[in-house]
Amino acid sequence: MNMGPEKVFFSSLATAKRARVDEALDRLLPREDEAPRNVHAAMRWSVFAGGKRFRPILVLTVGETFGAPEEQLLQTACAFELIHTYSLIHDDLPSMDDDDLRRGKPTCHVKYGEAAAILAGDALQTLAFEIVSGDDQLSFETRVRLISEISRAAGTPHGMVAGQEHDLEAERKQIDYQHLEAIHRSKTGALITAAARCGAIIAQCSSSDLATITDYGSNLGLLFQITDDLLDVTSTAEALGKTPGKDARAHKATYASVFGIDQARERAQQAHNDAQAALKRINQPTDNLCAIADFLLTRES
Amino acid sequence: MNMGPEKVFFSSLATAKRARVDEALDRLLPREDEAPRNVHAAMRWSVFAGGKRFRPILVLTVGETFGAPEEQLLQTACAFELIHTYSLIHDDLPSMDDDDLRRGKPTCHVKYGEAAAILAGDALQTLAFEIVSGDDQLSFETRVRLISEISRAAGTPHGMVAGQEHDLEAERKQIDYQHLEAIHRSKTGALITAAARCGAIIAQCSSSDLATITDYGSNLGLLFQITDDLLDVTSTAEALGKTPGKDARAHKATYASVFGIDQARERAQQAHNDAQAALKRINQPTDNLCAIADFLLTRES
Repeated sequence: MNMGPEKVFFSSLATAKRARVDEALDRLLPREDEAPRNVHAAMRWSVFAGGKRFRPILVLTVGETFGAPEEQLLQTACAFELIHTYSLIHDDLPSMDDDDLRRGKPTCHVKYGEAAAILAGDALQTLAFEIVSGDDQLSFETRVRLISEISRAAGTPHGMVAGQEHDLEAERKQIDYQHLEAIHRSKTGALITAAARCGAIIAQCSSSDLATITDYGSNLGLLFQITDDLLDVTSTAEALGKTPGKDARAHKATYASVFGIDQARERAQQAHNDAQAALKRINQPTDNLCAIADFLLTRES
Repeated sequence: MNMGPEKVFFSSLATAKRARVDEALDRLLPREDEAPRNVHAAMRWSVFAGGKRFRPILVLTVGETFGAPEEQLLQTACAFELIHTYSLIHDDLPSMDDDDLRRGKPTCHVKYGEAAAILAGDALQTLAFEIVSGDDQLSFETRVRLISEISRAAGTPHGMVAGQEHDLEAERKQIDYQHLEAIHRSKTGALITAAARCGAIIAQCSSSDLATITDYGSNLGLLFQITDDLLDVTSTAEALGKTPGKDARAHKATYASVFGIDQARERAQQAHNDAQAALKRINQPTDNLCAIADFLLTRES
C-alpha cells in the first residue's frame, strides 16, 4: 500500500504513542489471573482487541502541543480508552446493536457471555474514574476538572449514552441532517472533544486556547464520524475488521445514507478545513494536530 | 404493626432524611421531558421505585455525627444511591439475575426494554461521578478522595462489580463460609463501607475515627447482607416488595443456605455487636449510628 506523506507522518507519530498507551493500559488494568478472572479477562479482551487508540493519542498530542509532559497525560489518555471500550462492549450487546464481530474478533459478549460483558463494561467505566482520581501527578483541581469533563461527555443529556439512545431511536426512521448531526455530536463527538480538551486542561493552557481546542476537537469528532460512516459503505471487511454494510442493513441513519457518498465526502472536507482553521489560531507548532485531522480525512480503516 | 423503640427512633430519623435525599435526587437527575426521554424516564423509574435510601442515610448520619452540615453531604449521599440503583438495574437484566419485580414494581428492563435499561444503568453510574466532581461546596481534595473511594467500592477487584461476578459464579456451587463472606464483602459490603467512610471524609474526621467508621461500616454491610438473605427466606412478598424464596430457586449461596437460619441470626447478632463496639470508640454522640445498626438487625423489609 502506498501512503501519502501525511499518512507516513501520522503513522510514525501514532505508532509510538499507541505503544506507550498500550503499556500504560496493561499496567492500569487488573490482571487476568486476579479474581474475578472472567470479568478481568473480558475487560482485557476488549481493550486489547486492536483499537487505534485515537482518543488517547488525541489527549497526548493536544497536551504535548501545549507543553505537558507525556507522563502527566498518559493516565487520562487511558481513561478515555476505557470509557470508549466500555461503550463498544455495551453497544455490541444483543439488545443494542447486536454485533458479533469487532475489529476482526468476536465481540466481548460472544466470547465471554452477556453477563460478563455487561460487568466488564461497567467495571471499565468505573476504572476510568478511579485512574483519574488516583493520578497523583496532577493537582486535585485538575483531576476534578478532568472527571467533570469525562463524565459530562460520557453521560446524558449531551454525552455518549444520550447519543447511543438517540441512535437506537433513529433506526428505521427518516431523519434530517440536523438530527443526524445532533446524534453524532453526542454519540462520538462529545468524547472526542473532551479528549482534546482534557489534554489542554492538563497542560493548563489559556481559556482562549481551550476554546480553540474545543472547536478543533468538535470538528475532528464530526470528521471522525463521517469517515466512519463512509468506510462502512466503501471499505472491505478485511480493511475494516468488521462486516461493512452493517449500518445500511440495520437501517441506521448515517452521513452516507442521509447525504449520499459525494456530499458526505464534501462535508468531511469541510470539517477538516474547519479543524485546520482552528489550529491556525494557536501560537504553538501544531503539525501533529494537523496530522491527526489529515489522517482522519484520508483513513482507510 | 407494633414497633419497638429502636424502630420508632430509626423510622423518624430515616423518614426525614429520606425526604431530603429524594428532593436532592429529583433535582440532580435529568428531567423526563429532556431527551433522551426514554433513558431519563428509565433512570427515574428505578431511582424512585421506593428504595430505602440506606446508603445515603448512612453518608448523612456518619457525616453529621462528626459535624458536617447536611448540605455538604447530600450530593455525595445521592451519588451512592445512583451507584446502587445502577447496579440493581444491571443485576436484574435477563442475562444476570433475570428479575421481573423489584420493590413491588416491574424492573427497569421489563418496563423500558433491555437497551434503555443498560443505558440507564450506565448513565446513572456516570452521573454519580459527575455529581461529586461538580460539588463546589467541597474542596478539590475532598472531591478527589470521595471519587477514589466510590470508584474502588464500585469496581473490581474488590468492589461491587467483582462481587456480582463472584455471586454469579457461585450459583449452583457448594461454597463455604469464607467464600460467601468474600462475595458479600465486595458485592454489598464495599459500597456500604464506602458510604460510611465518605460521610466521615466530608466531615474531615481524624484518621483514627475514619478507621473506626470503616470497622462500623464493614460490620453494617455484613449485617445488611445477612438480614437480606434471611428476609428472602422468612418474609412475605407483600412485606418484601419482591418475590421471596428467589435465592433458593436460583440456587444462590446465602447466609441462610450456608449456615441455616438460626446460625445466620447469630452471625447477624455478632455483626451488630461488633458495629456497636466500634461506635463506643468514638467521642461523639452516636445514637443515630446505633439506631441504624439496630434497624438492620430487626428490619422486616
